[in-house]
Amino acid sequence: MRPFTFINVASSVDGKISNEKRIQLRISCEEDLKRVDELRAKSDAIMVGIGTVLSDNPKLTVKSEELRKRRLEEGRDANPIRVVVDSKCRIPLDAKVLDESAKTIVAVSRIANSEKVNTLRRMGVDVFVAGDDKVDLKALVEYLYKIGVRVLMVEGGATLNWAMLREGLVDEIYVYYGNMIIGGSKAPTVVDGMSFDPPISLDLLDVRKLGRGILTRWRVLR
Amino acid sequence: MRPFTFINVASSVDGKISNEKRIQLRISCEEDLKRVDELRAKSDAIMVGIGTVLSDNPKLTVKSEELRKRRLEEGRDANPIRVVVDSKCRIPLDAKVLDESAKTIVAVSRIANSEKVNTLRRMGVDVFVAGDDKVDLKALVEYLYKIGVRVLMVEGGATLNWAMLREGLVDEIYVYYGNMIIGGSKAPTVVDGMSFDPPISLDLLDVRKLGRGILTRWRVLR
Ligand SMILES: NC(=O)c1ccc[n+]([C@@H]2O[C@H](COP(=O)([O-])OP(=O)(O)OC[C@H]3O[C@@H](n4cnc5c(N)ncnc54)[C@H](OP(=O)(O)O)[C@@H]3O)[C@@H](O)[C@H]2O)c1
Ligand SMILES: NC(=O)c1ccc[n+]([C@@H]2O[C@H](COP(=O)([O-])OP(=O)(O)OC[C@H]3O[C@@H](n4cnc5c(N)ncnc54)[C@H](OP(=O)(O)O)[C@@H]3O)[C@@H](O)[C@H]2O)c1
Repeated sequence: MRPFTFINVASSVDGKISNEKRIQLRISCEEDLKRVDELRAKSDAIMVGIGTVLSDNPKLTVKSEELRKRRLEEGRDANPIRVVVDSKCRIPLDAKVLDESAKTIVAVSRIANSEKVNTLRRMGVDVFVAGDDKVDLKALVEYLYKIGVRVLMVEGGATLNWAMLREGLVDEIYVYYGNMIIGGSKAPTVVDGMSFDPPISLDLLDVRKLGRGILTRWRVLR
Repeated sequence: MRPFTFINVASSVDGKISNEKRIQLRISCEEDLKRVDELRAKSDAIMVGIGTVLSDNPKLTVKSEELRKRRLEEGRDANPIRVVVDSKCRIPLDAKVLDESAKTIVAVSRIANSEKVNTLRRMGVDVFVAGDDKVDLKALVEYLYKIGVRVLMVEGGATLNWAMLREGLVDEIYVYYGNMIIGGSKAPTVVDGMSFDPPISLDLLDVRKLGRGILTRWRVLR
């Protein structure tokens, strides 16, 4: 058993989620950031790859005080659990996802340095170990289900999105296309990794204008 | 002076226009192919990069007999002029774009082999020379305007789309997002080359469902 899982990503019209320097770009608009915050508030856990932590240092919490309050009223934590996929346990000890505002799980593989793992555990971080080289994503989502996660939001980056899709662990994908072209054959895209052959088929669930861009929602077909 | 110029491209949801093997993939649907044929029929010339000729060997003609007939009735050629951007004149002599069904211009730079250029000219192909290393795209579109081209359709690939945008020669871009994820950090995207910094801003002109995907149309802002 695994949680209902969706990817949410902000992309340029040409499929880029950052530029070739991999710096965080403002692709979304106000309206879209509000929508993303609502999706976070509805989720039990939010997952990112270590690449995203290293380049963007996101906090991955619910921004709206009202939404956090509503979660508390429902008997939930103010923020969803944060999950970082990080085989070698490269996460900086001062990463914002490790702050006090929410519970954090760092998923590592068996090649992770055990001293670093112990340091994290002493900081109160839940370290989940699975996989020989890369993190075993199937084992990870089963673990998340076991501890009560029913809705899992994946917020990138390009490589984690690919790996989750390849393992068949994604139910839906939201792509917000911001009104810009980023370009660059080396810029990260919505889904990197290696090409799927044949491509993964999707079913269009919804499309609408939002701000100056377009919000799309797709179901992943098996 | 240059023609009104638009790019038309079929993309996966993740911004890919082919997979990492660069083989031609069916991203569009019937409805979209019909739309593309109508765009071709409205254009005075259709431009592609040599990469696309080498990997897809497209014919670049109007498929609908009715649309060709209508062009003839309007006193135009049955098909638009085909323009191949090909600095080193690598085009195979048996490429479909060199067949008898339409006029073809091969744009080369000064590094192109002059024997190959002469062979093409003897075959009745118009060879336009501009640029030292790569084709001088500004000079090319000015030349197209001079010979009567008022509407220019650019049909890719990834690198030519980028170069035309970088030179500020594109007015609009149509992206059809087919209902699939292709993936692959090495697959060609809607716009490759190097990242624009800052990104190029667009204005959303239109978005609608078409077949199982989405057709979008954007104005390129200066
Ligand atoms: N626009 C948006 O919505 C958005 C959202 C998020 C990120 N981004 C951008 O995306 C970029 C980062 O993307 P990224 O592809 O470099 O990094 P990423 O997807 O965040 O993280 C990928 C890393 O996860 C680790 N990993 C662990 N187990 C894995 C497994 N089973 N399969 C695959 N990977 C596994 C690998 O590193 P180890 O082997 O070291 O563990 C891998 O390199 C940044 O430029 C960021 O700004 C954009
Ligand atoms: N889905 C779609 O709508 C669609 C449409 C078309 C193509 N495609 C795909 O796109 C891929 C091909 O894209 P591509 O990027 O490899 O090739 P491309 O954009 O078709 O051609 C690029 C080439 O044009 C030449 N060129 C000449 N002057 C240039 C200039 N000033 N600036 C930039 N380039 C110039 C360069 O080669 P030289 O230096 O040798 O001249 C360059 O490598 C294929 O996989 C094809 O299937 C998809």
